[in-house]
Amino acid sequence: MTSPPLDVSGRPLALRAIDWDPLFAPRSVAVIGATDTEGSPQRAQWRQARERLLARGAHAVHPVHPVKPAIDGVPAYRNVLDVPGDVDVAIVLVRDPLPVLEDCLAKGVRFAYVFAAGFAELGTEEGHAAQRRLEELARGPMRIIGPNTNLNLIEPWREGLPGRKLAVVTQSGNQGRPVVQGQELGIGVHAWATVGNEVDLEFADFAAHFARTPGVGAIAAYVEGFVDGRTMRLAADEAVRAGVPIVCIKVGRSDQGQAMAKAHTGHLTGPDAVHDAVFRQSGVIRVDDIDEAIEISGAFCHTPPLAGDRVALCVMSGGTGSHVADLCGLAGVPLPRLEERTIARLRELLPGYLHLGNPVDTGGVATARPEGRKVLEALIEDANTDVLLAPITGVFPGMSDAITRDLIALHERGGKPIVVAWTSPIRDADHRALCEAGIPVFHSFRTAVRGIRAMADFWALHRGYRGPFADAPREPSAALAAVRDRLVPGSTLDEVAAKDVLRAYGIPVVEEAVAASPDEAVAAAARFGYPVVLKALADGLAHKSDLGLVRVGLRDADGVRDAYAEIVAGASGLRLTGVVVQPQVTDAVAELILGVSHQAPFGPTITFGLGGVFTEVVRDVSFRVPPFSREEALRMIGETRAPALLAGVRGRPAGDLDAVADAVMRLQTLALELGDSIRELDVNPLLVRPSGLGAVAVDALVITS
Amino acid sequence: MTSPPLDVSGRPLALRAIDWDPLFAPRSVAVIGATDTEGSPQRAQWRQARERLLARGAHAVHPVHPVKPAIDGVPAYRNVLDVPGDVDVAIVLVRDPLPVLEDCLAKGVRFAYVFAAGFAELGTEEGHAAQRRLEELARGPMRIIGPNTNLNLIEPWREGLPGRKLAVVTQSGNQGRPVVQGQELGIGVHAWATVGNEVDLEFADFAAHFARTPGVGAIAAYVEGFVDGRTMRLAADEAVRAGVPIVCIKVGRSDQGQAMAKAHTGHLTGPDAVHDAVFRQSGVIRVDDIDEAIEISGAFCHTPPLAGDRVALCVMSGGTGSHVADLCGLAGVPLPRLEERTIARLRELLPGYLHLGNPVDTGGVATARPEGRKVLEALIEDANTDVLLAPITGVFPGMSDAITRDLIALHERGGKPIVVAWTSPIRDADHRALCEAGIPVFHSFRTAVRGIRAMADFWALHRGYRGPFADAPREPSAALAAVRDRLVPGSTLDEVAAKDVLRAYGIPVVEEAVAASPDEAVAAAARFGYPVVLKALADGLAHKSDLGLVRVGLRDADGVRDAYAEIVAGASGLRLTGVVVQPQVTDAVAELILGVSHQAPFGPTITFGLGGVFTEVVRDVSFRVPPFSREEALRMIGETRAPALLAGVRGRPAGDLDAVADAVMRLQTLALELGDSIRELDVNPLLVRPSGLGAVAVDALVITS
Repeated sequence: MTSPPLDVSGRPLALRAIDWDPLFAPRSVAVIGATDTEGSPQRAQWRQARERLLARGAHAVHPVHPVKPAIDGVPAYRNVLDVPGDVDVAIVLVRDPLPVLEDCLAKGVRFAYVFAAGFAELGTEEGHAAQRRLEELARGPMRIIGPNTNLNLIEPWREGLPGRKLAVVTQSGNQGRPVVQGQELGIGVHAWATVGNEVDLEFADFAAHFARTPGVGAIAAYVEGFVDGRTMRLAADEAVRAGVPIVCIKVGRSDQGQAMAKAHTGHLTGPDAVHDAVFRQSGVIRVDDIDEAIEISGAFCHTPPLAGDRVALCVMSGGTGSHVADLCGLAGVPLPRLEERTIARLRELLPGYLHLGNPVDTGGVATARPEGRKVLEALIEDANTDVLLAPITGVFPGMSDAITRDLIALHERGGKPIVVAWTSPIRDADHRALCEAGIPVFHSFRTAVRGIRAMADFWALHRGYRGPFADAPREPSAALAAVRDRLVPGSTLDEVAAKDVLRAYGIPVVEEAVAASPDEAVAAAARFGYPVVLKALADGLAHKSDLGLVRVGLRDADGVRDAYAEIVAGASGLRLTGVVVQPQVTDAVAELILGVSHQAPFGPTITFGLGGVFTEVVRDVSFRVPPFSREEALRMIGETRAPALLAGVRGRPAGDLDAVADAVMRLQTLALELGDSIRELDVNPLLVRPSGLGAVAVDALVITS
Repeated sequence: MTSPPLDVSGRPLALRAIDWDPLFAPRSVAVIGATDTEGSPQRAQWRQARERLLARGAHAVHPVHPVKPAIDGVPAYRNVLDVPGDVDVAIVLVRDPLPVLEDCLAKGVRFAYVFAAGFAELGTEEGHAAQRRLEELARGPMRIIGPNTNLNLIEPWREGLPGRKLAVVTQSGNQGRPVVQGQELGIGVHAWATVGNEVDLEFADFAAHFARTPGVGAIAAYVEGFVDGRTMRLAADEAVRAGVPIVCIKVGRSDQGQAMAKAHTGHLTGPDAVHDAVFRQSGVIRVDDIDEAIEISGAFCHTPPLAGDRVALCVMSGGTGSHVADLCGLAGVPLPRLEERTIARLRELLPGYLHLGNPVDTGGVATARPEGRKVLEALIEDANTDVLLAPITGVFPGMSDAITRDLIALHERGGKPIVVAWTSPIRDADHRALCEAGIPVFHSFRTAVRGIRAMADFWALHRGYRGPFADAPREPSAALAAVRDRLVPGSTLDEVAAKDVLRAYGIPVVEEAVAASPDEAVAAAARFGYPVVLKALADGLAHKSDLGLVRVGLRDADGVRDAYAEIVAGASGLRLTGVVVQPQVTDAVAELILGVSHQAPFGPTITFGLGGVFTEVVRDVSFRVPPFSREEALRMIGETRAPALLAGVRGRPAGDLDAVADAVMRLQTLALELGDSIRELDVNPLLVRPSGLGAVAVDALVITS
């Protein structure tokens, strides 16, 4: 294993390379803890493992048992070290796997499954200690799956299903089961990895491997927590590059879920809004439920890349047209005007009282006749649309059967992707025929529409994708050398020192002077021009405003002297190192906040939000994890109401959005270089001036780690 | 038909009384336009009508045809007037129904179905004219269903399904079909009304009738637009009272859907946020998709009233526990701590490494054994919980079959409601058995959790329900007489006149004086005390601030004189009637807006929101339609970020929330009495002072209709 390249933060820029062949096509396997004792769960596991592995082409599956000479008639060995020849895979069924794994390592085993539970998920010191020992073992050349895993990875799947196949990665067997049963909807399964506690092989390893595997169309995942934010992002990066989306259920939206996840596999879910942001910036399709995971990932397996998001909607009733159009509108899925020639064709096929635009309403009357197929054909051939959505609401003889027949015929002819929304609780032969033909079948309108939106977004991202890691800095900037020594661990930088750090990274900060006397303050004010602001400066001082140690709007020398005296009096309990004098920014259009914080499992994360009264009342913030592009920075800004504020409210001019994006990009460089030495950095406020005049940090706080 | 009582706004306080027997159990029916000509759609309709009606016990179903002496061997009449004896129901299949309906009216027909399309939904003047003629006919004693309807109302349904039955009301046949196919999930159907264009009988009539019908457990509805907001609310009121919820899909969330709905049945969808508010205040359960409509309404049919919202969650894996707990947390569904004795029982039944709290994780190991049922029993008997949620994720022999068997046995024993979330795409015999046993089966976790939340909320509302109409004022207040004459139609009241209207209704307004000279202004200011505000006063003047005709923070007589002069100069283009002098409110904690606007189809509607910069940046507003309770007013306030603002931000004291609620309640009385004479009323801003000090309207605008 050669080490992957690192970025300036010391984080990898590529996933580790793993030779997966011995795992997926093992020749020799040892099942440690195999038994044929009636009623023992290990008996069923051994038998299942042997059967599955032999069916996959393994040459030998050896039982390992401390005393029995043979298991089910197969010669057994007392120790894996006694097994003749190389062993590709060990399946470790014993309760205490650690000593056995040491033997496996000595034997040169390439992959070991560890079934046992009782590690970090216990939440006890013992459990964590055992997990740490496993982690140490995993530093060697042997890859470990689990603990807390099973045999899902070698389960056989239905053959002959249409389209590309689904790969499934879950941190729970029970949660993956319904997903692989998507076979019932015609979705073929490539493989299912149940990763358990992920002491070594993790979600990212499997996801990236599956993304690179030919014939895989999508990766469906159930995740409680990612062990490492960077590897997760690298896997997502590979998935977008390969055109194989990750469709992911991620627990942790609520406190209730977070607590349960920790008790289950010991995973920490991390802050949910940050995960949302990372998924968005990484092209991971987040879903909240199992039907969405199955149907959206399945649709990717069954359809070619969407050229765009423009839907042609064919309905058998105006009601369905209204309802689906409504949900399309809500999801931002456009129903564009059809080509004139399409409308002309529809006019020949359908009575004039029906809606012959988009949606097309066949009124059901044409569905059973040859015109039904011709309507669908006209929509498929319409150049203004990228995908045909055909809802089949109820099962109704003469309608649902007829359109099913036509859709399958047109699907088999190829061309524009077809998507069906089947909303009847009855799933009949037509339903089965659609699934087996490889047409994506959704079971609610909203999931169908969400699926189309997700497909269009994913393929738009994939086209011309560059990814955030291609341009990630590997060498430190000049700024780093200038400020590194100032970041004494465990300290709070005063306002002036904090702004020096920002300034070094090119983030504009307000002019300022530190005065040691009223005269010095007045001199500085005269230099800057009035009005000015005075603030106390002291080591470890935060929340100056709340302490009454800030005076704004000082318009003359008397005002400055009074303010100076008040600040000195008010700071009597503090070790005052001076009084800061700043020119007051009088043309601010908007007050924003910017920050760097540590967000598990991603590390240093950029926070952006509305400042001032909005901070408390609306709590309107967005997140991004570096590295990210300037385009992504603008998207982060756009997720808040900042654009409305920057547009200029109450007669104010528009604010300098470019300058805000610049500040975010520079803060990102800072976060990559210094993030691990900084516990928290807050720019509050960043005042935004009118377009072309920039933005300026007027106060800042840095707390080092 | 006696007229129902009216409230002070002239709107009904009860729905019209209708004798439904002749419709649902007709003795004699005429089918006008019946034919036996091969290939004619009317032949199929006539045959279906006859078969269904005879099966329902009709004595005679007479065809009416202009020339044929008999249809399918049944003697035909040339005109409905020729049919012997009384005719309860006419089914009008002809393209131009108007002349025929006149005959029906003359014949004394009680109910007429009108199949024809081609009315308001065309959007043409001809279509509207035809619909108006139908409306005129509907003023008579004959009730009309449609136009644009069908025979869904007399369709036969599966017998022998468990629980109470579902009534369905839709404005589209195609959209109702999958809902009645909920029979596949064990949901029995009572009746399905497809109401079409609702020229006479409307959603509200059917919904209220079904709510009063014994054996009906829920009403599922697909609605594009309500013809009348008050009748809709009255139906919802009856439904809550009867304990029969309305579960409603309502189109109109997006512009795309609104446009299509208008083209379909001619219904105007109305503003969506107002519908959301009315549904909330009326106990209507709004859903966005067909699966939700089926599964949530079906769950009401299959479960007794929920005593609360506390869920006991039993899972076969910690992963499912994490996921479902997460979605419960997101939906505000609590998973309370189980009773100690329950936990003790679980400890005896399950291994200690599993999660024995709530959720209970059986790890799947206990499921196939007798312990499996005992775990479920312990949860059902736990006094801290109100409903048992049992997810069955994948079909898995030894687990899904075992828990199915146990759940059915416990369900049949009665007691605490059981809800299943079945997420596998495989629907096998166990799935069918659960449905046929009358256990509510959801097909996604989120719908199950939403269903439980909706059930708990509905039953909480039902218990001790009084409803908004019981206390609605029928007689005008003293205020009405005082202000009615001032509301000259088509005018804009100046600020002073607008606030006089508010004052008459007891809404606190700022003190003010109208000055005709600088001296008068200074005198008034001296009387109020400084600081004061000066504003221009002129007929038809709105947006004074934008025009620079407001001066605030005037601290002395010179300031007042200067401001007076500036306002007079600035108002040179206006017919200035004076300058308003007000004391400036200096202790405002929050700036809010209150208003009355007309929102179709509900009429005068109260708007509440954050004022000042929030108005433009966050657009944080909520709505309620009068009459509503003070509790509802507080909920309206709580739907915005006003509580956060009123809690006191940036060191300000908490604001007077009571005074805000008082202002809303008084504005409601105003809206009921004057709403139809007022096109728009805005209080902007309502300044909220610290707790106990009240709130005060400092500016207002009234535009009459």
